[in-house]
Amino acid sequence: MKRYERYAAEVADLISTGTLRPGDRLPSVRLASANRRISPATVFEAYYLLEARGLIEARPRSGYYVSQRKAQPDTPAASRPQRRSTAVEISDLVFDVLGSTRDHDVVPLGSAFPSATLFPLQTLARHLARGMRHFDPQRIVDDLPPGNIHLRQQIARRYAIDAMHVATDEIVVTNGALEALNLCLAAVTRPGDVVAVESPTFYAALQALERLSLKALEIATHPTDGIDLNALAKALERRRVKACWLMPNFQNPLGSLMPEEKKQTLVALLAKHDVPLIEDDVYAELYFTASRPRPAKAFDRRGLVMHCSSFSKCLAPGYRVGWAAAGRFAQQIERNKLMTTLSAAIPSQQALCGYLDHGGYDRHLRKLRQALARQRDTTATLIAQHFPQGTRITRPEGGYFLWVELPRRVDALQLHKLALAQRISTAPGHLFSASDSYHHCIRINYGHPDDSRCEPALKTVGALATQLARQ
Amino acid sequence: MKRYERYAAEVADLISTGTLRPGDRLPSVRLASANRRISPATVFEAYYLLEARGLIEARPRSGYYVSQRKAQPDTPAASRPQRRSTAVEISDLVFDVLGSTRDHDVVPLGSAFPSATLFPLQTLARHLARGMRHFDPQRIVDDLPPGNIHLRQQIARRYAIDAMHVATDEIVVTNGALEALNLCLAAVTRPGDVVAVESPTFYAALQALERLSLKALEIATHPTDGIDLNALAKALERRRVKACWLMPNFQNPLGSLMPEEKKQTLVALLAKHDVPLIEDDVYAELYFTASRPRPAKAFDRRGLVMHCSSFSKCLAPGYRVGWAAAGRFAQQIERNKLMTTLSAAIPSQQALCGYLDHGGYDRHLRKLRQALARQRDTTATLIAQHFPQGTRITRPEGGYFLWVELPRRVDALQLHKLALAQRISTAPGHLFSASDSYHHCIRINYGHPDDSRCEPALKTVGALATQLARQ
Repeated sequence: MKRYERYAAEVADLISTGTLRPGDRLPSVRLASANRRISPATVFEAYYLLEARGLIEARPRSGYYVSQRKAQPDTPAASRPQRRSTAVEISDLVFDVLGSTRDHDVVPLGSAFPSATLFPLQTLARHLARGMRHFDPQRIVDDLPPGNIHLRQQIARRYAIDAMHVATDEIVVTNGALEALNLCLAAVTRPGDVVAVESPTFYAALQALERLSLKALEIATHPTDGIDLNALAKALERRRVKACWLMPNFQNPLGSLMPEEKKQTLVALLAKHDVPLIEDDVYAELYFTASRPRPAKAFDRRGLVMHCSSFSKCLAPGYRVGWAAAGRFAQQIERNKLMTTLSAAIPSQQALCGYLDHGGYDRHLRKLRQALARQRDTTATLIAQHFPQGTRITRPEGGYFLWVELPRRVDALQLHKLALAQRISTAPGHLFSASDSYHHCIRINYGHPDDSRCEPALKTVGALATQLARQ
Repeated sequence: MKRYERYAAEVADLISTGTLRPGDRLPSVRLASANRRISPATVFEAYYLLEARGLIEARPRSGYYVSQRKAQPDTPAASRPQRRSTAVEISDLVFDVLGSTRDHDVVPLGSAFPSATLFPLQTLARHLARGMRHFDPQRIVDDLPPGNIHLRQQIARRYAIDAMHVATDEIVVTNGALEALNLCLAAVTRPGDVVAVESPTFYAALQALERLSLKALEIATHPTDGIDLNALAKALERRRVKACWLMPNFQNPLGSLMPEEKKQTLVALLAKHDVPLIEDDVYAELYFTASRPRPAKAFDRRGLVMHCSSFSKCLAPGYRVGWAAAGRFAQQIERNKLMTTLSAAIPSQQALCGYLDHGGYDRHLRKLRQALARQRDTTATLIAQHFPQGTRITRPEGGYFLWVELPRRVDALQLHKLALAQRISTAPGHLFSASDSYHHCIRINYGHPDDSRCEPALKTVGALATQLARQ
């Protein structure tokens, strides 16, 4: 850190801790220079930096004052993607960027995963051992697709808790939600078909489209309440859309949450056009709201909604157990699974059966939600304090991603490179669209509350973004 | 069982135990009828049945004699598939037939899996528990593709034991060999491409081709030494073949084993045409020969051979750990894996790491090979005794499948249905070709040496086939 950055950081700390309050005058350049034994130029540099971040403001012929800024930055506006569909080619970039998040020395702000320390891995290991020690080898074929019946019944039971009727028969156990989503997409499309997605959207959806030679139709999406149903309705009138791939609950990357009525309207709209919905719902259990938000699947009467989820984000990362509740497409999904990966690992299925019966899943979930909600607040505050003026962020009611919209002149890919040089990963907005939007946005992972490197890393990213905003 | 079948079975037993020997005269119809208190018509029915099976023969004006038949039936001839490529549509049939093998009450002669009781499931469970109890959550991303480095090193080491140099870097851990094969196929083809396969071939290859809208070019294959290289060479001259999917070691369903020189020639031939080879090698460790037969990969100098295998058939069924040693295509395989199923289950990867280090893998393999070799002999003998005259079988030097060529008038699908009505599964030849050949063949699984139902089931299938041969 250069001298002026160090001084700027000190002043920012005084502001964030409330020692300096909005409207307070900062020491003059001459005074600060004398007190701190740094050159006036260094003080100027520091003040420019703080000004670019929006923490202080210059008043003509009077000096610098702490800004009267709001405690939280604004929420970004709804997206306005292009109206034409686009062939998808983002995989190289995704792999380049995500590869960097796997280095243990790199702070995982750009990671897709929450910290594995948040999960009851010891308890799961116990159930794993117990399940397999008493495993009857004769029953090995029983865990083939659609999957272990006991596990599928437990999944159906959790739907029932949320007042949803999902038949055990339509549940197919998969290698995590990612396989479920890919199987669902393959089941309802042919190369060249158009698929509607949110904008921005989870890059894995874009990769799946790319892999299957499909076209992405990106639909305007609001960072708070999700996809714009008017825009979707227009698209459905205008185009032959073969499927929708959406995340109504805690969308990745926005964190948006569709209200129930909106989900109901969505399902009716898609039913009218006979368009299947692939619903990615992996973050639903990580809600900070009063109760688990119900998925669009809850309103499906025609078997058109394929609801995909997993235990990877909320209980058992790396166990690779997910599922699709695939409605009328269940048999096709089951067969496609048998043909491509045969089955989910039996030890994993057995461990989850045991844990769900006896492990204390709900207690674990309560703790996990609290930890993530606290970390969301901490992270939002740090971004408010250290990111450049004009930065907007979402305030998700669940999950572990914040969407940060930086001033337009900041290129998130450049920011990613600069941050990476300091061993910090970020997920640039480029990853979340096939049409090269969001180049000034980044997704921040706040799912590592136990990682003490995250706070200084956020400050560093803020400082780098501020520099880029000034260029 | 009807009265005449019971009597025929008794006589067959006398023959198989050697009480009645080749050339011995059977009791006359009148005598047998009187001794056994059954009608002469019943005795005739029984003798007709035994004659159709080739166990006895009628000599004009002299009566019935035990046949001078060989101890083992002939080996089937090389296949002669059509020369044009075919679109593939066999999945429905495969699922119908294989679905039946999953019922515990059904004798698994048609199953694709060996008996799970053959595997050290208890020892694996111990390594599973140990691996996950001491698992460092920080390292959870380390098992993402290409997969756990320690496991990949152990796999590379096993190649080295067989005098092959396979770099750890080109090994990608997958959810069993089936995923590896599918990923490899997707990496080197586009819809509409032609892929050369053996004839008959493993139905999963045909399903993969069907799923990816590829065309199968079935190449003549000899039941003893594998694919006909002249036929393959001609096909490569004539057609734009984008890939080959072959099983040089213990081919499923034939059990054929390509000699080393032939593999070498194969690799050179494919290299000449720049055609990648997808090599399915899941049965290699189950050899009854002096040592593990080397795969075609051993002769690859250009990174064109993608060698796929797993621990599912020889150590850890249901763990879903396989791999591709994918040569120049390794990175693409790794990315495709990340996009579709993310990673192989971490508990499974950890368990295999531990087991391979300390579990006694080679000791287990020696026992397993002995059990399977014994059961191959028992099964071949039972087929020789109880299947209709003119039946030919392969005598594989490894694996757990026998290929049975019945008299042409026997329809294997009808046989499958009749056997299934008696709770016995068989795998009809229809499953192993896209061009509707092999309707008079079946694949018999002898991988259940501990299942006492297999012997009577084989006799029943033999009796049913004999009936069909007489119609």
